[in-house]
Amino acid sequence: MSNILTDDPGYKYHEKTPKIDAKEFQKVIDSRRAVRIYEDEPIPEKVIKQCLHNALMAPNSSNLQPWEIYHIVDPAIRNQMNKACLDQIAARSAATLFVAVARTNTWQQHAQEMVKLFEAAGNVPKAAISYYKKLVPFVYNQGFFGLWGIIKRLLFFIRGLSTPVIREPVSQCHIKIWAVKSTALACQNLMLSLRAYGYDSCPMEGYDSKRIKKILNLPKDAIVVMVISVGKRAVGGVYGPRIRFDESRFLKKV
Amino acid sequence: MSNILTDDPGYKYHEKTPKIDAKEFQKVIDSRRAVRIYEDEPIPEKVIKQCLHNALMAPNSSNLQPWEIYHIVDPAIRNQMNKACLDQIAARSAATLFVAVARTNTWQQHAQEMVKLFEAAGNVPKAAISYYKKLVPFVYNQGFFGLWGIIKRLLFFIRGLSTPVIREPVSQCHIKIWAVKSTALACQNLMLSLRAYGYDSCPMEGYDSKRIKKILNLPKDAIVVMVISVGKRAVGGVYGPRIRFDESRFLKKV
Repeated sequence: MSNILTDDPGYKYHEKTPKIDAKEFQKVIDSRRAVRIYEDEPIPEKVIKQCLHNALMAPNSSNLQPWEIYHIVDPAIRNQMNKACLDQIAARSAATLFVAVARTNTWQQHAQEMVKLFEAAGNVPKAAISYYKKLVPFVYNQGFFGLWGIIKRLLFFIRGLSTPVIREPVSQCHIKIWAVKSTALACQNLMLSLRAYGYDSCPMEGYDSKRIKKILNLPKDAIVVMVISVGKRAVGGVYGPRIRFDESRFLKKV
Repeated sequence: MSNILTDDPGYKYHEKTPKIDAKEFQKVIDSRRAVRIYEDEPIPEKVIKQCLHNALMAPNSSNLQPWEIYHIVDPAIRNQMNKACLDQIAARSAATLFVAVARTNTWQQHAQEMVKLFEAAGNVPKAAISYYKKLVPFVYNQGFFGLWGIIKRLLFFIRGLSTPVIREPVSQCHIKIWAVKSTALACQNLMLSLRAYGYDSCPMEGYDSKRIKKILNLPKDAIVVMVISVGKRAVGGVYGPRIRFDESRFLKKV
């Protein structure tokens, strides 16, 4: 997500957009439903690979890629995962499970690697390198016991009296929200991709995150964002027509 | 997202999946880039309408739809919004701006309306009605000063010693994460849809959330999730080839 430069850097790089048959895309959006009962049919490895790749093509905050996706293949772990998902049928009947995880402390390493990549490339503007070298640590660090976050909050408040300033992240909660946000974008890429390639999914939140962290041996900073069950929909697997409240409640023109 | 039923309710409802040309979908994923400089060209109202509709078709937590999207059309507000986005060119040069907002206190009203809809339908299982009537308030309420959240945390801890339990949300931060997560899913639907219909976008986090809340007159519980600028990419608007670290860092088979 964009944070860096306020002025046109005069790049000449260009990626032409392809001609796309939007009707095919629209079918993906329209036919994606939360599927809770699946056929007993595996998903081809090729499809899984492409869909996971697509997940990582989602936009993400400052390209710091704070995500991980665990693909559950071991039958014993799968069994534990079903239980951690409270044995709900959306987990139990699925061909396979993915666990989307947000990481709140990988940004440091990733920022350093962006610097290395940019320096190696040779033609990257200094402002972009400085962004990862200086601004990213300034913005994302919360300091010991969140103390630096509190100081930043005060600094931003004072500076914000006279001029627009970025207000977040200045707490551990903000950092979590930040990491979860990018990871959710990846999840939606994953679920739409599965649909496009002929498969269905169910994003689940009804699980024991503590047990999942233990099962997957996740580090302390990891957040389980959602478990995505996957397979081919069985009859009765979509529980009913899609319900949405009136759009005027959510879409505002100002 | 699925939380409700652990057993096959024996529904007979079915939605057949359409035949989809996945190549067209793949082009959407592949050609979506963060675009920071746009052509001076408006987006047809029909495209905006369809893309915003698609955003609301994203999966969301218990169908509680904790999202809102503001479409900035008024020139004076647009001007204020550009400033709140620190005058970055991704905002300034855009044909239009969307602001994705997560709401942390609309779930109560939405749960009640789900009950009404289900009761009016007549054929919805009692478990589903009870889910919105009883479980949703139990799960999402945090109580006065978060006290109920703290009690729940303790209850879940004790019960969790012997059996898998849902651990979240038991704090105001969890509720925020919860609402942001669903809203981010909608954002990705929006950005991919724009791409499918021939337009580009940039998800921005470099903004003054306090000023945006004031400009849009947002209630206290609202969280600005991202500002999405939109338009047709100009040459130089994509700053360089897509950079992702090695996939093996993020994709784990367990």
